[in-house]
Amino acid sequence: MPVVTVEKKILKKNDEFAAENRKIFNEKKIFAINLLSSPGSGKTSLLEQTLTKLNQQHNIAVVEGDVQTDNDAQRIAKLNIPVVQIITNGGCHLEAKLVQDALPNFDLDNLDLFVVENVGNLVCPANYDLGEDKKVILLSTTEGDDKPLKYPAMFRVADVMIINKIDLLDYLDFDMETVKQNALKINPDLQFYETSCKTGAGLDDWLTWLELHIQNKS
Amino acid sequence: MPVVTVEKKILKKNDEFAAENRKIFNEKKIFAINLLSSPGSGKTSLLEQTLTKLNQQHNIAVVEGDVQTDNDAQRIAKLNIPVVQIITNGGCHLEAKLVQDALPNFDLDNLDLFVVENVGNLVCPANYDLGEDKKVILLSTTEGDDKPLKYPAMFRVADVMIINKIDLLDYLDFDMETVKQNALKINPDLQFYETSCKTGAGLDDWLTWLELHIQNKS
Repeated sequence: MPVVTVEKKILKKNDEFAAENRKIFNEKKIFAINLLSSPGSGKTSLLEQTLTKLNQQHNIAVVEGDVQTDNDAQRIAKLNIPVVQIITNGGCHLEAKLVQDALPNFDLDNLDLFVVENVGNLVCPANYDLGEDKKVILLSTTEGDDKPLKYPAMFRVADVMIINKIDLLDYLDFDMETVKQNALKINPDLQFYETSCKTGAGLDDWLTWLELHIQNKS
Repeated sequence: MPVVTVEKKILKKNDEFAAENRKIFNEKKIFAINLLSSPGSGKTSLLEQTLTKLNQQHNIAVVEGDVQTDNDAQRIAKLNIPVVQIITNGGCHLEAKLVQDALPNFDLDNLDLFVVENVGNLVCPANYDLGEDKKVILLSTTEGDDKPLKYPAMFRVADVMIINKIDLLDYLDFDMETVKQNALKINPDLQFYETSCKTGAGLDDWLTWLELHIQNKS
């Protein structure tokens, strides 16, 4: 099918831009993560909690990817974090070139942590390397424990899986062991964190993981 | 950008297949809907409830679109409804040609209702007409009342918006009036139904809407 051929060409070009981004992040000793999930899983809420905690000790920059609106960027800007909003105008994922175009807006020499919040989508962003060190996937408990099997590509490429909205567990048919086993079938190396951005539960373990990676990269 | 050009070509072809599907549905007097949402909003659960209620009075067929697994089709098959699973192998939406290829599996002369459950994705399926009479979008309360503004394309093309998982409203920061106003800003003609597939709340109104459309088409 013609679309496959075109897709491959785009991906090849994307990988070249991603490699350039990765080189920049390595030279500047910046730890870079790519935050992935469906719409409404809580990426921006997790980011707000994370940035509020780490903002004192670290210099952080954020790129927000959305198909429309700069709502998310405005939420981050309120925390006095440098942020660039990329509007994809209907595009279902970010590409490495778009991230690269955002870089001159930041003081890269003085950054420790670079966070990309990707477009809310559990399918498309999987194949687009942005040059990040780690891909972090969020799944909220309300989405169901079957999702790693149904949307395997995203879980296959992720390094960390954050299971969010655990405050709602009592009201849902969601089994924590099932979701982890489903995810490990797809990707045996996944690391898990269980969080609630509403109660703050589990955030410390996630922050420790982030802190360690920031330190290792500096 | 090259991808835009290619996208347009594919869409043009898709629209031709969609027109053929629509002609078939009209000739056979089948009411056809395209069910859209993010992963985990409850499309399959709504479908299970809907089919269980309508299965006695109507002949129904279902096409399930998924990037991987036939879990959803197996859930529908348990209800003794003819179902075809389309696996997109990573593709983030169904296309009219894929639906057309599924049609010979059904007894079209004796069908009243044809349901396509699209791939779980709040971005990609918006532009792909499948030949359906109505597009029905599900948004679950757990996804947030801001989503119509952030993912406008899907809400713009929809005829009906089902706000699902209302049993969780007490535990969420989700405002029903806000989500409706946000959706109406994008699409002033949207009709709303509020449902819970867990408690059964609100399903009757949705079923009445479906029944009326099935009758009008027959």
